[in-house]
Amino acid sequence: MNFSMVRFILFQVMRIEGVLMLLPCLVSIIYGDGEGLYYMSVAFALIIAGFAGCHFKPKNQTINVKEGYAATGLSWIVMSLAGCLPFWLSKEIPSFTDALFETVSGFTTTGASILSEVESLSHTALFWRSFTHWIGGMGVLVFLLALIPMSGGSNINLMKAESPGPSVGKLVPKIRYSALILYVIYMVMTVLEVIFLLFGGMDLFDAICVSVGTAGTGGFAVRNDSFMSYSIYIRWVVGIFMFLFGVNFNAYYYMIMRQFKKAFCLEEVRTFFIIVSISTVVVFSRILPLYENAAAAITDAFFQVTTVVSTTGFCSADFDLWPATAKFVLCFLMFMGACAGSTGGGVKVSRFMILWKSIVREVQSYIHPKIVKKVTMDNKAVEADVLKSTHVFISTYAVIFLASMFFVSFNNLDMTTTFTSVLATLNNIGPGLSMVGATCNYGFLSGLSKWVLTFDMLAGRLELFPMLVLFAPSLYKK
Amino acid sequence: MNFSMVRFILFQVMRIEGVLMLLPCLVSIIYGDGEGLYYMSVAFALIIAGFAGCHFKPKNQTINVKEGYAATGLSWIVMSLAGCLPFWLSKEIPSFTDALFETVSGFTTTGASILSEVESLSHTALFWRSFTHWIGGMGVLVFLLALIPMSGGSNINLMKAESPGPSVGKLVPKIRYSALILYVIYMVMTVLEVIFLLFGGMDLFDAICVSVGTAGTGGFAVRNDSFMSYSIYIRWVVGIFMFLFGVNFNAYYYMIMRQFKKAFCLEEVRTFFIIVSISTVVVFSRILPLYENAAAAITDAFFQVTTVVSTTGFCSADFDLWPATAKFVLCFLMFMGACAGSTGGGVKVSRFMILWKSIVREVQSYIHPKIVKKVTMDNKAVEADVLKSTHVFISTYAVIFLASMFFVSFNNLDMTTTFTSVLATLNNIGPGLSMVGATCNYGFLSGLSKWVLTFDMLAGRLELFPMLVLFAPSLYKK
Repeated sequence: MNFSMVRFILFQVMRIEGVLMLLPCLVSIIYGDGEGLYYMSVAFALIIAGFAGCHFKPKNQTINVKEGYAATGLSWIVMSLAGCLPFWLSKEIPSFTDALFETVSGFTTTGASILSEVESLSHTALFWRSFTHWIGGMGVLVFLLALIPMSGGSNINLMKAESPGPSVGKLVPKIRYSALILYVIYMVMTVLEVIFLLFGGMDLFDAICVSVGTAGTGGFAVRNDSFMSYSIYIRWVVGIFMFLFGVNFNAYYYMIMRQFKKAFCLEEVRTFFIIVSISTVVVFSRILPLYENAAAAITDAFFQVTTVVSTTGFCSADFDLWPATAKFVLCFLMFMGACAGSTGGGVKVSRFMILWKSIVREVQSYIHPKIVKKVTMDNKAVEADVLKSTHVFISTYAVIFLASMFFVSFNNLDMTTTFTSVLATLNNIGPGLSMVGATCNYGFLSGLSKWVLTFDMLAGRLELFPMLVLFAPSLYKK
Repeated sequence: MNFSMVRFILFQVMRIEGVLMLLPCLVSIIYGDGEGLYYMSVAFALIIAGFAGCHFKPKNQTINVKEGYAATGLSWIVMSLAGCLPFWLSKEIPSFTDALFETVSGFTTTGASILSEVESLSHTALFWRSFTHWIGGMGVLVFLLALIPMSGGSNINLMKAESPGPSVGKLVPKIRYSALILYVIYMVMTVLEVIFLLFGGMDLFDAICVSVGTAGTGGFAVRNDSFMSYSIYIRWVVGIFMFLFGVNFNAYYYMIMRQFKKAFCLEEVRTFFIIVSISTVVVFSRILPLYENAAAAITDAFFQVTTVVSTTGFCSADFDLWPATAKFVLCFLMFMGACAGSTGGGVKVSRFMILWKSIVREVQSYIHPKIVKKVTMDNKAVEADVLKSTHVFISTYAVIFLASMFFVSFNNLDMTTTFTSVLATLNNIGPGLSMVGATCNYGFLSGLSKWVLTFDMLAGRLELFPMLVLFAPSLYKK
């Protein structure tokens, strides 16, 4: 493996994180809460280490699949370890395990919290907590690629390792411009949401925190009751933006290029839209008897469907109290997740579509053994490689899921809690059901469980393999 | 499709079922409970219809994959519909839905019951209920192949459709002899178990019912408390036989042929043995504090591990009350199930092994992209076809699982009940957890749920596709 290139990327990431950590320092100055000192120290340490480490450029800048995965996996670990330091040093989260859990939950856009109440946190901590969602949503390596020109065409492997979905394509021939376009769309949409929320009477600080959380499809809220006390207007704005951030960003790129037909013909996006619509109707029909009026029911149905399908995890209602069918639909959407190429997590709509199409093809092949039919997406045949990886992805996902449940089961909790705590972290959602439900948190779990779930959040965000290769002994052989 | 051949097979199956149904008539005569009349009438109706329908042999006796699947799926439906008639006509199970559920549960060797207590059933009904396990365990079409010489080499497709596992091989070149060998081993082992149980002081009727239930890895018991009041000796005998019936029958064939090395080198069997051992130790360590002495704890740990891994479903303890880790291990074993080529259900050990090996290969391929490694079993490369079907099997399994949970969720029960009711029927186990746990039954579920779970039991026993092709419209096109 090209160790010096992996090291070089790690120092680059540290440098970027250091610079981004200056933003909470600014927040601290505005609100005068005195917490900025901790952020400032960590930020400078990162920047100095980063600049020092990046001074020596490696001669061989090749990044193969192996280096792409290893660099991505390690970057996220380093980023999380550094990112949790301010919480821990300032004693706002006194336990290191908890501080790391909270930070990983932020970067991976999970939104699962160990805090029983967040309103007592300083503005600085609240901002950094939400801002980690924004950094992790589109990805720090994509950010790096957008900022820094790297020689060699092989850095597509970095983007592939960090971006979600069964196959990652470039929007334009140059990786750097692809990454830049993605970040510009991301930033413009975030600003748009802030503006819409300000219209709804939210104050600027809350609007920014909520918007960066939505953009990354994170889920950390700035109020103890998440979204339960916000107005219907605000719930709809956030609901619609959660949906929009769950859409494949390619669609927006096509729209900017005025290729509207191409944007609306994306099979994955259409399927996503249909699934969200049907799910909203099913959930609405099941929860209607619990509500006084249909408007409130449809708002909560739409909000909860978009919040779980985009794997954001804001809560506008305690859905743990909803009927079993509504809960089941939400759990199913948790599994599925958002579109590939969005900021959402989960298995991804396109993977579900590929699996579904392989099943149909298999059944047909029993009936007409001589007809060779290919699995297609957007009228193009899905490559055998992508098909195979999709199947292996699902199997790997199942193995990690089961292994995690085994470790969490030592807490001796009910099965729904054990099951949904893994589901909600591995798919980067946040709240689960029962004891990790909308009104609860993860603080009471054992240290072992927290470490396992921390691993799950990272594995889920990076789509498993960048974390798994780190465990392969052959990676470290010269 | 070759409709006349499918029809011919269906009538053959009816004839065989009619003859087998004469056995409960004999039981009725011995115990003089007067229920034999219903069995006799249905048996004669089946025999007459069967002989009439088999009179005209189709000219074209080809059975392709398509015909194999369709004939198998339809055979099991016809067999279940006919098999439930005596329960329903005699009013021992007054509802038709319930009678069908119980019969399908019998033939598919699930052992899930809608009866809250079984001791009030007549001996005839108790015997027929347990005997359906024996018929379904090795399969009625395998029985047919063993009995009736069929022309054309293509009837391997019948055996493939009914026998469990990712790939089905013949023991000897002639299908008929392969089927015969399997049935002889099956019968000898059943008789051995009866003898061992008689030594333990069980009466003959109970010993026969328990043995045919174990042989088919069914799970219908003849006592209301299943195995909770039997002695430790009997629990060990049944536990060991459940393990033995969960082993790939190829191992026994090799032993008979004195190829001991070949028998002990079967990778799947060794893995099965290791998994059962580790699981027993884990469960034992978790439940020990609940027991007064270690002997009782290890007995129950071994019994429950073998009963769920072989997908039998007898209960020697109410494991719903056990610690979460023990419950999780049991649920995992329910998913996995027994070896391919055994009478057990579930996803099968070999499929899990193939999946595990594909994952390892995928991770390695990221690190060493140039090394092409094949997935192997027993030192032979697994064919690409088998690999692909295994992945598609798992995906299809997941889809059916989720769809079933959706329908069952309309009962508005807790998630553990919803989840394990599907798990326990689709994997042909029997008891689940919570409201469908060891001391409960399926009687309280809605009609819709019972039909869905009935479908799941059939789909699980036939490994999905024979049931699914029946829904493909193109099957019925000339």
